[in-house]
Amino acid sequence: MFNVVIVRYGEIGTKSRQTRRWFENILMNNIREALVSEGIDFKKIEAKHGRVLVKTNKAREAVEVLTRVFGIVSLSPAMEVDADMEKINKTALKLFRKKKRELGLERPRFRVTARRITKEFPLKSPEIQAKVGEFILENEESEVDLHDYDIEVGVELMEGRAYVYVDKIRAWGGLPIGTQGKVVALLSGGIDSPVAAFLMMKRGVEVIPVHIYMGEKTLEKVRKIWNQLKRYGYGGKGELIVIKPKERERILEKLRELKKEKYTCVFCKYMMVRNADRIAREFGAKGIVMGDSLGQVASQTLENMYIVSQATDLPIYRPLIGMDKEEIVKIAKEIGTFELSTLPEDEIPFIPKHPVIRGSWEEFRKLYKAVFGEEPKKREC
Amino acid sequence: MFNVVIVRYGEIGTKSRQTRRWFENILMNNIREALVSEGIDFKKIEAKHGRVLVKTNKAREAVEVLTRVFGIVSLSPAMEVDADMEKINKTALKLFRKKKRELGLERPRFRVTARRITKEFPLKSPEIQAKVGEFILENEESEVDLHDYDIEVGVELMEGRAYVYVDKIRAWGGLPIGTQGKVVALLSGGIDSPVAAFLMMKRGVEVIPVHIYMGEKTLEKVRKIWNQLKRYGYGGKGELIVIKPKERERILEKLRELKKEKYTCVFCKYMMVRNADRIAREFGAKGIVMGDSLGQVASQTLENMYIVSQATDLPIYRPLIGMDKEEIVKIAKEIGTFELSTLPEDEIPFIPKHPVIRGSWEEFRKLYKAVFGEEPKKREC
Repeated sequence: MFNVVIVRYGEIGTKSRQTRRWFENILMNNIREALVSEGIDFKKIEAKHGRVLVKTNKAREAVEVLTRVFGIVSLSPAMEVDADMEKINKTALKLFRKKKRELGLERPRFRVTARRITKEFPLKSPEIQAKVGEFILENEESEVDLHDYDIEVGVELMEGRAYVYVDKIRAWGGLPIGTQGKVVALLSGGIDSPVAAFLMMKRGVEVIPVHIYMGEKTLEKVRKIWNQLKRYGYGGKGELIVIKPKERERILEKLRELKKEKYTCVFCKYMMVRNADRIAREFGAKGIVMGDSLGQVASQTLENMYIVSQATDLPIYRPLIGMDKEEIVKIAKEIGTFELSTLPEDEIPFIPKHPVIRGSWEEFRKLYKAVFGEEPKKREC
Repeated sequence: MFNVVIVRYGEIGTKSRQTRRWFENILMNNIREALVSEGIDFKKIEAKHGRVLVKTNKAREAVEVLTRVFGIVSLSPAMEVDADMEKINKTALKLFRKKKRELGLERPRFRVTARRITKEFPLKSPEIQAKVGEFILENEESEVDLHDYDIEVGVELMEGRAYVYVDKIRAWGGLPIGTQGKVVALLSGGIDSPVAAFLMMKRGVEVIPVHIYMGEKTLEKVRKIWNQLKRYGYGGKGELIVIKPKERERILEKLRELKKEKYTCVFCKYMMVRNADRIAREFGAKGIVMGDSLGQVASQTLENMYIVSQATDLPIYRPLIGMDKEEIVKIAKEIGTFELSTLPEDEIPFIPKHPVIRGSWEEFRKLYKAVFGEEPKKREC
C-alpha cells in the first residue's frame, strides 16, 4: 500500500545552504546504512525541498528502523501518486479507511492538512484541504474537527507528485552521526554510561566505546549494552575496545600500604580516563564521555571530578551532569539499555567501605607519586 | 483550612543515615530561606520519617514558593488532625467537597490512599482506606475508581497525628542547593546559558554568575535573567559578577592584522573561561558551567570546545551538551528565562562573517603567542 517514507529533519534546516547539503548527504548515507544492514529493500533515497524521501514498498518496516537514525525528527509512511485531485482524494480515502479500522472508531473526527512544497499545483492548500475533507465526509461516517481529531490526513505536493499519509511518527531528533566528529565513551556496565554515550550519539557524534576490564561477567554485559547502543549507531559504530589495566595491582597495593584505600575509586577513575585519553589520541577522538551525575552517589562530587579531569587535557563531556536518577532511568528504559545494565556483574573485591567524598588534589598527587615515582602529568603540558 | 505542607524529597532518602540528616538540614534551611524571603508566615519546619512538615496557615502560598526549592519532589497542602477515625473522615470529606467544587464535577470518581508512617494507629492502611471511602460515598455524590480517578484523597498517619490532603504537586526534584559545592556559571544573555546554570543548581550546586561585559543593553538583560534564576536559588545565590575584559581590543587588533578574524569567537570564549577560572579560584568554586550544545551552531564543534577547554584546568560542565535546541527552549520557557533571553541586546561589531568551524589548537597557540607574547598556560601546569 505505502510506497514511500517521508523523512523530516530538524535543525539541519537552519544551517547555510552548503552545510545543509553536507548534512543531508550524511543523513542519506546513514539512512542507507540503516536500511541495508536491517535488510529492508528500497528503490531510492533522495533529498527534496527540506525532506528526504525513501522509495520503498516496505515503508512500515523502514519507519521502525529509521526512528533510530539521529537527525530525523519525524517519519510518515506515505503513498506517492500523481498530483491529480481525483487520485489524491481516492488515496486519502483509502488511507483514512485503513486508519479508521485500526483505531476501531465508528465516527472518527478528522482534519486534512495540505501543503504545497512547490507551487505548480493549481489549487491552494486550503482548497485542497476542503476538497479532500468533503470527499471523505461523503464516503465515510466521520466528522471534521480541526482541533480535537482522531485522524490527521496529510497531503504534501511537490514537483507534480502528491504524498498522502495518516501517520506522523516522532523520531529522536538530534544530528546525523558523522557530522560532529568522534569521542571516546567509557562504558562501565552501569545504568548511566550508556545513556551518556547515547546522548552524545544523538548529537551527531561517533562514539568509540571503551571498557576497562573488571571480569568476564561484566564484560559480557557491556558487550550486550554496546550491541543495543549500536542499533542507534548507523553512520558510525566502532567495536568495543576492552582494556585490561596493567597497573591496578600496583596501585591497590600501594594504597593499602599507605592506608589510603579510600582513594581507590578516584584513582581507578583517573586511570580509566588516562586509558580513554590514549585511545582518543589513537583514533583522533576529540573528547571523552562519562556518565557522571552530580551527587548521585556520595562520592560523585565536584572535588572528585576535578581530580579525575586532570587525567586528560581533552574535554570530558558529562551529558547527565544535571539530571536526576529518575530522568536517566527513563531514557535508559526507552533506549533498551536499562534491563541490560541490571544484569549481574563481577564483584569488585577492592571497593573501599568509605570512598573519599571530597578528594584532595594535593593528596592525590602525593599518592600518584608514591605509586608511579613521578608527578601526574597531562600530555599537553 | 490547610495548616501544614507535606514536603517529599527523593534521592536524599537513599543515602546513609548521617548524610541524610545533613541533607535534611540543608533542605530545611533552604525551605526556611524561601519562605522568609517571600514573606510567608510559618510556625515550624521539621523533618519526620522521611518527609519535611511545614506548619503554616498559608499552605497554598507556601507550596507555590517551595516548588522552586531543589531537592523537593512533591508537595501537598494538608490538614493535620488527631489520628482519630471520626476526625479523619470529616477532614477527608471537607477536602473532598472542596476539590469536587474546584473541578466542577457532578459525580467524581475517587480513591483513598492511606499510609501508616508509624504504626500506633490500630487500623491498617486498607481498613482506613475502606472507612474513609465509605464515609465519602455516604455523604457525597461520587464513585470509587482505583485506577481512573478524578480525586485522590491521601491520608498519612504518624505519631498520633493524621495528615489529609487531596493535591500532590510535583516539584523539580534534584538536590538541595548547598550540598554540592560551588561552580561559576558564564551567563551570556542567550537562551542556553541560563538553562545550563539552572540544571547545575537543580543538582545542588551554588552558582556564581559571571557575565563578560558586551554593552549596557545586554547587561540589563543578563541582570533580569539572573534575577529570574535566583528565584530557584534559595540556599545560595550570589550577586552577578560583571567583568569588563581589558584585552579585547588588543586581541581584535592582532587578529585583524594577521587576517585571522575567524578565530575571534573562539578567542573570546577562551578569554571568558580564563576570567571564569580566576573568579572560581577567588570563590573556591570547583568548576565552570557553560551552555554549549554540540553542533547547535556550526562553530559549536568538538574542536572549538577543545581549544576553549584549555583555558582552565577546572572541569567545564556542559549540561546541555546532549540536548536539542527544542529541549533547551522547553526548559527555558518552564523556568521563565526564555522571554528574557529574547530581549534586545547590544550588537557585537566584531563578530566575523565566517567563524572558524574546526579550530586548530596549534594555530590558536600561535595566535595567542602573537597577542600575548607567551604560550597559553593553565594555572596548574
